[in-house]
Amino acid sequence: MLIVAERINATRKSVRQALEEKKADFFIQEAKKQEEAGAHFIDVNAGANPEREAEDLPWIVEVIQDKVSIPLCLDSANHEAISEALRIYKKDEVMINSFTAEEERMEAILPLAAEYGASVVGLAMGEGGITESAKDRMKLVEKLVVGVEKYNIPREKLLVDPLVVPVGTDQTQGKVFLETLANIKRDYPEVKTICGLSNVSFGLPNRRLINRAFMALCVGYGLEAVILDPTDLKLVAILLASEVLMGRDEFCINYLAAYRRGALEV
Amino acid sequence: MLIVAERINATRKSVRQALEEKKADFFIQEAKKQEEAGAHFIDVNAGANPEREAEDLPWIVEVIQDKVSIPLCLDSANHEAISEALRIYKKDEVMINSFTAEEERMEAILPLAAEYGASVVGLAMGEGGITESAKDRMKLVEKLVVGVEKYNIPREKLLVDPLVVPVGTDQTQGKVFLETLANIKRDYPEVKTICGLSNVSFGLPNRRLINRAFMALCVGYGLEAVILDPTDLKLVAILLASEVLMGRDEFCINYLAAYRRGALEV
Repeated sequence: MLIVAERINATRKSVRQALEEKKADFFIQEAKKQEEAGAHFIDVNAGANPEREAEDLPWIVEVIQDKVSIPLCLDSANHEAISEALRIYKKDEVMINSFTAEEERMEAILPLAAEYGASVVGLAMGEGGITESAKDRMKLVEKLVVGVEKYNIPREKLLVDPLVVPVGTDQTQGKVFLETLANIKRDYPEVKTICGLSNVSFGLPNRRLINRAFMALCVGYGLEAVILDPTDLKLVAILLASEVLMGRDEFCINYLAAYRRGALEV
Repeated sequence: MLIVAERINATRKSVRQALEEKKADFFIQEAKKQEEAGAHFIDVNAGANPEREAEDLPWIVEVIQDKVSIPLCLDSANHEAISEALRIYKKDEVMINSFTAEEERMEAILPLAAEYGASVVGLAMGEGGITESAKDRMKLVEKLVVGVEKYNIPREKLLVDPLVVPVGTDQTQGKVFLETLANIKRDYPEVKTICGLSNVSFGLPNRRLINRAFMALCVGYGLEAVILDPTDLKLVAILLASEVLMGRDEFCINYLAAYRRGALEV
């Protein structure tokens, strides 16, 4: 499983504050901590103040990029912020998070992804927002695939997020999500799938429990990348256990390594 | 999910000892505790001493059957023990655990299941033991289905256990099991599926973690009945969360009820 580490996100109060005070050390520590916990990409979201995002995002990138050996995932709805961040970005590999099936978003983001050879997260969401059925969700996935091809981005660089909807309000949505995962693998084997987990448990008690069960189910239905907090050891533990069970951890190497370093929290 | 409570099993030392000393109270408490924890059937396994099993099994049944309102699951490889237990059993509903795809086992168990209108657990295992591939496993499932029909037992009374093999020694076996679950639902929609969980983690560290992830995956692939310890709150919690996520808990009624009585351990 490809882990995109989510802690540097300006919707979190501590991050917003550190950004306002330009506390470089805070971001360096957060980045290092997540790399040590096993992340493969560090997501960077500087969307606290829309007017400053095109300066804030490059600033965080500048501050942390030399301090970790893993690549960054530039997370913004503002293509100017992403463009400015890419301009000063030095590593070979990069991920852009995200575009949608809306024409305007595709035209803004996909040329950048093509120019910089970036991996790019596409949300299965169109002009009409999030659709309810797995079938309608697949129509949006098709738009995303057609979109990247239009800009000559190989399908392998596309990570589709089928979009997680809270199950507390609609109990069919967990299955819709998981079926969409399976359908994407069936129809577009080169395309990868990605998601964040926590939205699924919105409105329910013991959210972490729901998130953990959902982690296992996502592995069971073939999810390849996940946006999560890699320092949440219990969540990572259930991920590692699920990968063993689905035959995705040959000789249980990752599971046993986590056990040996005392990171397998139950 | 139908929960078959597994604690009264003579392979456990405390149970074996209580059986030798004919401690009726021990069995009554174990039975009540499991009913209170939400079990739907109480499994009774008296197989400590093969020569005494045909007396021991009916003795436990006699001791506990009036003390709980839920039915029992008679668990033995000895058809005489099952026959004796059925003779003194008073409740309407009963489950027999188990028969296999071997002719001899079918001839011994299925007439009893037919006579008493019992549900019956069939193990996907034949003369050659457990098969490795999902395809071969399905041939054994077919034998089980043909077997119950031969004795005019309705398919709805059959619970197939696809058999869990430790993933520590063969990392393909988790997927083989889960695919077999899905295939059974596809080919025999009336037949139910059942399994025990703990065998899957044999030989690996932090077995409970693997068991919990496996619980979620089994719900994800449609398992309908499970043999577990219902007093293991963390295991039941992940089961309840998974049922919410798979749309198997309308309005999250079971999940929220467990939360309210403080039983949702994380």
